[in-house]
Amino acid sequence: MSSNFGHIFRISTWGESHGAGVGVVIDGCPAGVPVSREAIQAELDRRRPGQSDIVTPRSEEDRVEILSGVLDGLSLGTPIALSVRNKDHRSSAYDEMQHTYRPSHADYCYDAKYGRRAWAGGGRASARETIGRVAAGAVAGAVLSALCPELEIIAWVQRVHRISCGVAPADVKRDVVEGNIVRCADPAVAERMAAAIREARAAGDSLGGIVACTIRRCPVGLGDPVFDKLEATLAHAMMSIPACKGFDLGSGFDAPDYRGSEHNDPYCIKDGRVRTLTNRSGGVQGGISNGEDINMRLAFKPTATLMIEQRTVNDRGEEVTLRGKGRHDPCVLPRAVPVVEAMARLVLCDHLLRQRCCRL
Amino acid sequence: MSSNFGHIFRISTWGESHGAGVGVVIDGCPAGVPVSREAIQAELDRRRPGQSDIVTPRSEEDRVEILSGVLDGLSLGTPIALSVRNKDHRSSAYDEMQHTYRPSHADYCYDAKYGRRAWAGGGRASARETIGRVAAGAVAGAVLSALCPELEIIAWVQRVHRISCGVAPADVKRDVVEGNIVRCADPAVAERMAAAIREARAAGDSLGGIVACTIRRCPVGLGDPVFDKLEATLAHAMMSIPACKGFDLGSGFDAPDYRGSEHNDPYCIKDGRVRTLTNRSGGVQGGISNGEDINMRLAFKPTATLMIEQRTVNDRGEEVTLRGKGRHDPCVLPRAVPVVEAMARLVLCDHLLRQRCCRL
Amino acid sequence: MSSNFGHIFRISTWGESHGAGVGVVIDGCPAGVPVSREAIQAELDRRRPGQSDIVTPRSEEDRVEILSGVLDGLSLGTPIALSVRNKDHRSSAYDEMQHTYRPSHADYCYDAKYGRRAWAGGGRASARETIGRVAAGAVAGAVLSALCPELEIIAWVQRVHRISCGVAPADVKRDVVEGNIVRCADPAVAERMAAAIREARAAGDSLGGIVACTIRRCPVGLGDPVFDKLEATLAHAMMSIPACKGFDLGSGFDAPDYRGSEHNDPYCIKDGRVRTLTNRSGGVQGGISNGEDINMRLAFKPTATLMIEQRTVNDRGEEVTLRGKGRHDPCVLPRAVPVVEAMARLVLCDHLLRQRCCRL
Amino acid sequence: MSSNFGHIFRISTWGESHGAGVGVVIDGCPAGVPVSREAIQAELDRRRPGQSDIVTPRSEEDRVEILSGVLDGLSLGTPIALSVRNKDHRSSAYDEMQHTYRPSHADYCYDAKYGRRAWAGGGRASARETIGRVAAGAVAGAVLSALCPELEIIAWVQRVHRISCGVAPADVKRDVVEGNIVRCADPAVAERMAAAIREARAAGDSLGGIVACTIRRCPVGLGDPVFDKLEATLAHAMMSIPACKGFDLGSGFDAPDYRGSEHNDPYCIKDGRVRTLTNRSGGVQGGISNGEDINMRLAFKPTATLMIEQRTVNDRGEEVTLRGKGRHDPCVLPRAVPVVEAMARLVLCDHLLRQRCCRL
Repeated sequence: MSSNFGHIFRISTWGESHGAGVGVVIDGCPAGVPVSREAIQAELDRRRPGQSDIVTPRSEEDRVEILSGVLDGLSLGTPIALSVRNKDHRSSAYDEMQHTYRPSHADYCYDAKYGRRAWAGGGRASARETIGRVAAGAVAGAVLSALCPELEIIAWVQRVHRISCGVAPADVKRDVVEGNIVRCADPAVAERMAAAIREARAAGDSLGGIVACTIRRCPVGLGDPVFDKLEATLAHAMMSIPACKGFDLGSGFDAPDYRGSEHNDPYCIKDGRVRTLTNRSGGVQGGISNGEDINMRLAFKPTATLMIEQRTVNDRGEEVTLRGKGRHDPCVLPRAVPVVEAMARLVLCDHLLRQRCCRL
Repeated sequence: MSSNFGHIFRISTWGESHGAGVGVVIDGCPAGVPVSREAIQAELDRRRPGQSDIVTPRSEEDRVEILSGVLDGLSLGTPIALSVRNKDHRSSAYDEMQHTYRPSHADYCYDAKYGRRAWAGGGRASARETIGRVAAGAVAGAVLSALCPELEIIAWVQRVHRISCGVAPADVKRDVVEGNIVRCADPAVAERMAAAIREARAAGDSLGGIVACTIRRCPVGLGDPVFDKLEATLAHAMMSIPACKGFDLGSGFDAPDYRGSEHNDPYCIKDGRVRTLTNRSGGVQGGISNGEDINMRLAFKPTATLMIEQRTVNDRGEEVTLRGKGRHDPCVLPRAVPVVEAMARLVLCDHLLRQRCCRL
Repeated sequence: MSSNFGHIFRISTWGESHGAGVGVVIDGCPAGVPVSREAIQAELDRRRPGQSDIVTPRSEEDRVEILSGVLDGLSLGTPIALSVRNKDHRSSAYDEMQHTYRPSHADYCYDAKYGRRAWAGGGRASARETIGRVAAGAVAGAVLSALCPELEIIAWVQRVHRISCGVAPADVKRDVVEGNIVRCADPAVAERMAAAIREARAAGDSLGGIVACTIRRCPVGLGDPVFDKLEATLAHAMMSIPACKGFDLGSGFDAPDYRGSEHNDPYCIKDGRVRTLTNRSGGVQGGISNGEDINMRLAFKPTATLMIEQRTVNDRGEEVTLRGKGRHDPCVLPRAVPVVEAMARLVLCDHLLRQRCCRL
Repeated sequence: MSSNFGHIFRISTWGESHGAGVGVVIDGCPAGVPVSREAIQAELDRRRPGQSDIVTPRSEEDRVEILSGVLDGLSLGTPIALSVRNKDHRSSAYDEMQHTYRPSHADYCYDAKYGRRAWAGGGRASARETIGRVAAGAVAGAVLSALCPELEIIAWVQRVHRISCGVAPADVKRDVVEGNIVRCADPAVAERMAAAIREARAAGDSLGGIVACTIRRCPVGLGDPVFDKLEATLAHAMMSIPACKGFDLGSGFDAPDYRGSEHNDPYCIKDGRVRTLTNRSGGVQGGISNGEDINMRLAFKPTATLMIEQRTVNDRGEEVTLRGKGRHDPCVLPRAVPVVEAMARLVLCDHLLRQRCCRL
């Protein structure tokens, strides 16, 4: 029950990092949506390893195949199955992981929960699992494009370790973000971030940071009170991304800084529409979108895989040391950006379809 | 579909602030759980208005009735329906709200979504909706007590506006928290917080803050990869609480401050069990509890209801001003504490039951 | 998880026969639907005990209260809670049931499953549980009336014991059905059925039969392949009604009598619409409504409660005899008719809302 | 939302008859279950075309691949993805189907619902869709074997057209059923059935019938009141199988023949266990298994595909005639047997896991 997400536009992901492959089944995609292998592949290419010198050099083509649910480039209304084959990576680099728990990885917890785990490369807990999310997110994006062509979702790296980018969410431009390897909204800051990441990698260490995401021109009315508030389902989606440790919306963790008289967003009429003069609410009030930009932040911890010797234990209960091998991301944030966008698309697409049933 | 929460231990809440009442139906509670009206009432009393001079003086008894699912003090395995009648509060204090949208409230968004709303007192978006959560949380607490008697959940007010309490989560004591009207972990800080709240109320203003929550002695293995990670379902639960703007776990939004070598929690063996030397993971790794304390923080915005004149619009699209009337909480945090604990109990109870199915 | 039904228009029923009451929470009802206490009460009155001399003389007013989700006669889009209080019937008539299992009742199985049960009057397994279904069905009916005013659902008693009514589904008239106490489509047959029921009651015995149901002018396209085919969700709904032992659709259990060349329904064009010349499909093809009448049959076993001494066992594993006491229906079918219609409405309403999401 | 089935042991099927393939993702399978490709393949081979001269001669190897969720022959607790590639069958045999609606097939309804359809070979409505069910059913069977090794599920062809097999459910033997190409419980009757099927095929016609299914030694207590009664979920499962028009349990549609005094199953004590002297309840009382054999019947209509000219319409609203081409089953029942067993396994496996949560 754990690998399902969404209520109407509902996805089921599957796959381990070193099994036959990874993929997703999308149930509930409306008929008539343009779905092309190329559009899905383009999103997967954004999260692919090996795209720059600051991400893992592992070479994975991650070529997606559409197995069902699409005919002549349009969805049929039936389940869309998408699959990416794994190359065979199972190598001696992972042998030590079979019995030794990598610190701050899922190894120990999977063993404790299930009594066993696919130990090579993190198995189900590997970041490869996000391939299914990104592929499904591309289909959700096609639904959104068809139904809300004006809606725009942009995520970017707002912070790496102690280096922050100060561009306001409203000023972030997609081409700027995609124009640098960090996916930062400011090219100059991106260079400093990239340097920090290279430095960390050279030290066998890793860095975390913050990914921000803004949703522009979201229709008014999305989000379902009371448990499936828009911010609650977004939080669920984002906090399910590996390494994400925090989520906030609008004023978020800065909200306590304000008094109510400073924090409330006064309503006004602009171009004949109800708008707010400020946007501390972050585009959501009472769990429902109000038409303003939906601004989120996600805190990511530094990658747990290090090329440094660490203290740990093995599955026989012995204290041992472990030194990471293989090739890994010293900083997951550049590749997390398309995953964050995919999750945002999945949430919005589901709420947009739910919305069709909220009034007579 | 929006007023359901949980997968096996599943609740459905209902009720508007000025309708006949509010309540909850719990489906999936195992048979044989001790359920008493008194235990549920005790939790409701913790969130009741009028309990101190820093919360709303509105007088509501909030007396719960058990309508089904319990016989001779034990659950039957069938749905448990709990109900609290509303007193009739519909007064002229709310008349203005029928057509005027209160800033940073849900009024406008409900109208935009549904075409209509229960305007008196916030209707479904009122904090009275949390009564159903707290009542159901008390039942979830009874399940947890029966199955994991050692497990402990404590929430407390960690910050009000700019006043913070520095007690470490591991040192927080329930009797201290419940011993002051703010529900702060430090009585001295609580007094300063209370003074700030009184000052804000006198000014017709309001304050936000941070509620922290710790879960001690949680069994290892709770939480379901990949979408229903423990932190993702906790985030969903917490971000669905009215006025909550952010959620983090463990190092949370401080995670980017660390390098990986500083952030990873080394494993060790303590008392024959696998433990971690530090707990930046916040008790969860790979979405699954690892047996360490689960530490969370929730950011709350200042109450939107102000006794100050504010700029806004009405449902005819006119710009108007509005001045709050009636009696409201200048700071929701003291009364949010039992709600946060209730949501934590609901999430853990559901995961604990799910857990029974994860192995042969 | 077991007391929920529906995916978008979703109900949760609660209540035992001798607890405080019974009721239902409806989540997912669109806003703007006319919902009146009187319309719901009218449906409940059709299933109420004591309405004629062939049903149980137990006197229950079964007065429904709308607790939430409705303002000024229209649904709000938020959960609609409906409740009916039980009178206090717990009497010595039931004392024997506390430890003795009534044959072909749920007593033993509830004990075996849950370790305990609400023994008075059948508890959760009592037919009083259907009150929540009928109340929710009335709301579903209001949605259908608003969205498909031409749609008509009629159930009737087609057979009691060995007495059958030969009126073809297309010829059944609601006023005729409601014009006799058996709810048979033929008044003359109804009298013979009533006589048989009276005879059985006099003998302390009971009778079963068949309830038929037809849905006229159903929109084309309802039903979701592959697991939620229209006939599969209808079967689920109907087989969940107490005492229902069988369900079929269209040719149903007579289908094997035909060869394919006799059974297929040829398509034709009538009044510019695609129609079928015959309707052995029963209005559903490939799990989706085709616009023809949806014809169903439900087989009901004779009431398990008898006023005759029966062989059984008690909860101490002793073989004993039991003689029914109290007042019961010698034949459930007349009162099952509104329950069958309610379940049909719930299924159609849910599929009608799902339908809004099946195309771009 | 329509291609999901089950609550804890939950499957999502995908695939069209002439797309890349068909398959299923199983979420919620406990860890530690022996899952082998061979065991799954063995079940698929039972439903494969071309296995005898009375089923379609179409040659499909239907070779299953395990893509995830299994390591070293045991389930991991993570989703199990199973896939079968289609051979390329898209041929001119189907060209006519692109615009002409085959009578009593799903073609017209899919077009009406979705605005388009995968027309070749029936697309999603093809019987190939059941491959995912059978594959998932094999995994469910492995769970059942591990948890309830004594449980046995046998389905068989009880009737073809007007030829019935009189073997009582309790006397049916699996090896006898599997020992003849019809899968009838009586070899002599099987020969007559096979002759009738051959005769129908020679005439370009088709036959329906009844598949019966018995579940022996089912644990007491499975099934969840009130909507997910065991018979209700079984009915849902079975009525979702293509061509199934009716379902009953125990006395089923014969129940009305009895008076209550004849129909009730008296309890007795046998071998220290509560048993019933008769089994008209069909192993289920109050929606919960009572430990007696669970006996079901499914009515199947004759195959809709005929090699005879039929009257129909096309998608331009013209009345035309159509003559089936290609190779099809003149009688689906022999190949439906493994599908019925698979659905029974899926339902029982899900209820068995749910059962773990019903008591403290």
